[in-house]
Amino acid sequence: MNDLNVPAGKLLAFCSACFGKLGLSSQNARLTAENLLFANLRGVDSHGVIRLKIYADRLRAGGFKPKVQAKVVAEQASAALIDARHGVGQVAASAAMKLAIRKAKKTGMAVVSVRNSNHFGASAFYAMQAVEQGMIGFAATNAGPTMAPTGGREGRLGNNAMAIAVPARKSPPIVLDMATGAAAWGKIFVAQQEKRKIPMTWAFDKNGVPTDDPNAAAHQGLIQPFGGYKGYGLSLLIDILTGVLSGGGFSTHVRTLYKQIETPSQVAHTCAALRIEAFMPLKEFQLRMEAIIQLMRSCPSAPGVERIFVPGEIEHETERRRRVEGIPINPELQAELVGLAAELRIKAPF
Amino acid sequence: MNDLNVPAGKLLAFCSACFGKLGLSSQNARLTAENLLFANLRGVDSHGVIRLKIYADRLRAGGFKPKVQAKVVAEQASAALIDARHGVGQVAASAAMKLAIRKAKKTGMAVVSVRNSNHFGASAFYAMQAVEQGMIGFAATNAGPTMAPTGGREGRLGNNAMAIAVPARKSPPIVLDMATGAAAWGKIFVAQQEKRKIPMTWAFDKNGVPTDDPNAAAHQGLIQPFGGYKGYGLSLLIDILTGVLSGGGFSTHVRTLYKQIETPSQVAHTCAALRIEAFMPLKEFQLRMEAIIQLMRSCPSAPGVERIFVPGEIEHETERRRRVEGIPINPELQAELVGLAAELRIKAPF
Repeated sequence: MNDLNVPAGKLLAFCSACFGKLGLSSQNARLTAENLLFANLRGVDSHGVIRLKIYADRLRAGGFKPKVQAKVVAEQASAALIDARHGVGQVAASAAMKLAIRKAKKTGMAVVSVRNSNHFGASAFYAMQAVEQGMIGFAATNAGPTMAPTGGREGRLGNNAMAIAVPARKSPPIVLDMATGAAAWGKIFVAQQEKRKIPMTWAFDKNGVPTDDPNAAAHQGLIQPFGGYKGYGLSLLIDILTGVLSGGGFSTHVRTLYKQIETPSQVAHTCAALRIEAFMPLKEFQLRMEAIIQLMRSCPSAPGVERIFVPGEIEHETERRRRVEGIPINPELQAELVGLAAELRIKAPF
Repeated sequence: MNDLNVPAGKLLAFCSACFGKLGLSSQNARLTAENLLFANLRGVDSHGVIRLKIYADRLRAGGFKPKVQAKVVAEQASAALIDARHGVGQVAASAAMKLAIRKAKKTGMAVVSVRNSNHFGASAFYAMQAVEQGMIGFAATNAGPTMAPTGGREGRLGNNAMAIAVPARKSPPIVLDMATGAAAWGKIFVAQQEKRKIPMTWAFDKNGVPTDDPNAAAHQGLIQPFGGYKGYGLSLLIDILTGVLSGGGFSTHVRTLYKQIETPSQVAHTCAALRIEAFMPLKEFQLRMEAIIQLMRSCPSAPGVERIFVPGEIEHETERRRRVEGIPINPELQAELVGLAAELRIKAPF
């Protein structure tokens, strides 16, 4: 079998139908499917339909509760706390961002934190909801412990992630979406398969010593924080701003997506929105954004560099291409989706 | 001459007297001096009294305006914009943080941005003002262009910096204070003097190619963003959240501290405060902070690692030591301070 290019709309309808069969309301099923396809369209396949199977498994095993209603448990003019009650992360985080936007429209800025949630997919999805309203958006999440603090050799922090999105005028929005790990496990597994060394800054072996051997990394090793102790600091601060602040799980209390799938994973998120018009007219801000984007793009480049990008630009161009060409689905994933379709008695998307 | 250990109180009084002579009100003189000594006490000597001379030169040349009053030019319940009118950065940023705290007490969270400001010293100084009020504090600043976007070879972004500070209970607050550059110029100059190579991740030569030669870095080279394109992204986002959002200088419009000292440098800052009690009682939060700090400290360590630190811990311990032992001042700095004392007709601090 070869890679198949599948139209995004077909995959969206399929994911949506699966989530519906698994007990989500049609609105929540659609929202969760949109989050997965958002990632695929932007080329972030690690957060796309590749996650559908584990989400389905967790929905069936009890790790995700399909029917619960997220609840606001504390609220002020510019802050709120939501208890997701172990529902789907995408549903709770979208509710949080919606509430942050509504509050920020009135007050200028607002923050909403979420506890008892689950994996929420790509962070940029939420941050960009603020951009649609002419605002700056921020979204962060913690995750199960796969990184050590600097100097350590045991998982105490997740590959915690955050996104900030800012509207521009004719350019696509600036979207910085980053995890705090130096590399994704996926890249290390590929190096293992291809018998290539990895950079010494990606992973530790089981003793906490930097290694260029992907096998040593995969055998009880850990991901390194990106940029050394600064990446560790950012990962810890994200855990504090999500898990500690929300009253939810943090550090070793958070479970990874693929283990103990019958148990809620205690993930926490924090979303924030900032009203640009509290500072200046939106149009003026957008023109200033075009100016700074232009200053980045026009920078003389280093040898061998064809083009200088701003954060989110590559993803935006990938999305334009994939909306036409479809989403490439590899044979393993094709088989997985076909299998899931059979299990749920839904028509497969290809 | 040898290093002298000078009591912090003596240096504080000296800096304060200098700023008074240079036209600042006694309150603003004291505040600015406190910011410099805050850095020295915490071992961040790059932001301490080493900056007194250039501040004095800028105050005399017109680059810092000693007597202007920062002005709130836009305001909402949880957001405000301050025009610093080219005054001292420390004065404007402290006013911004004070306003953010006052607003956040009422609404849960607030952000205040500052334009037309100048170098504001250590970011942690402002973030920690929120901690004193039982809040989480955030402060960020842009700076003159000394870094290129990823792939570039010309300065388009400052070594932009940010700090986040979070209160704990019996432990010192967690304080992450980081610039977005991989290394400070000071470290590269030391390598030059000692004829040592530098890590390939610190700097570019004048063509934008990573170099381990400190001379190639110093000769029209640039600092690399920390952690590759993620550091570039963070630096750009800080410039957007400070310079672009405030209506102030950004990218190449910001001037570095040591050049064109008669001209205001167009630096911009953004401060924010988050009210913990919007989410849970402060004491409960503090206990949760102790738990996450303990999880970091108790992590089994890698070979050769004696202790695992949390952000701000080393600085806290340095402060405790230096409050007793004094601040080490090297011979060059001694001569500079004695010279400045003579120029301003003030008694030198040693």
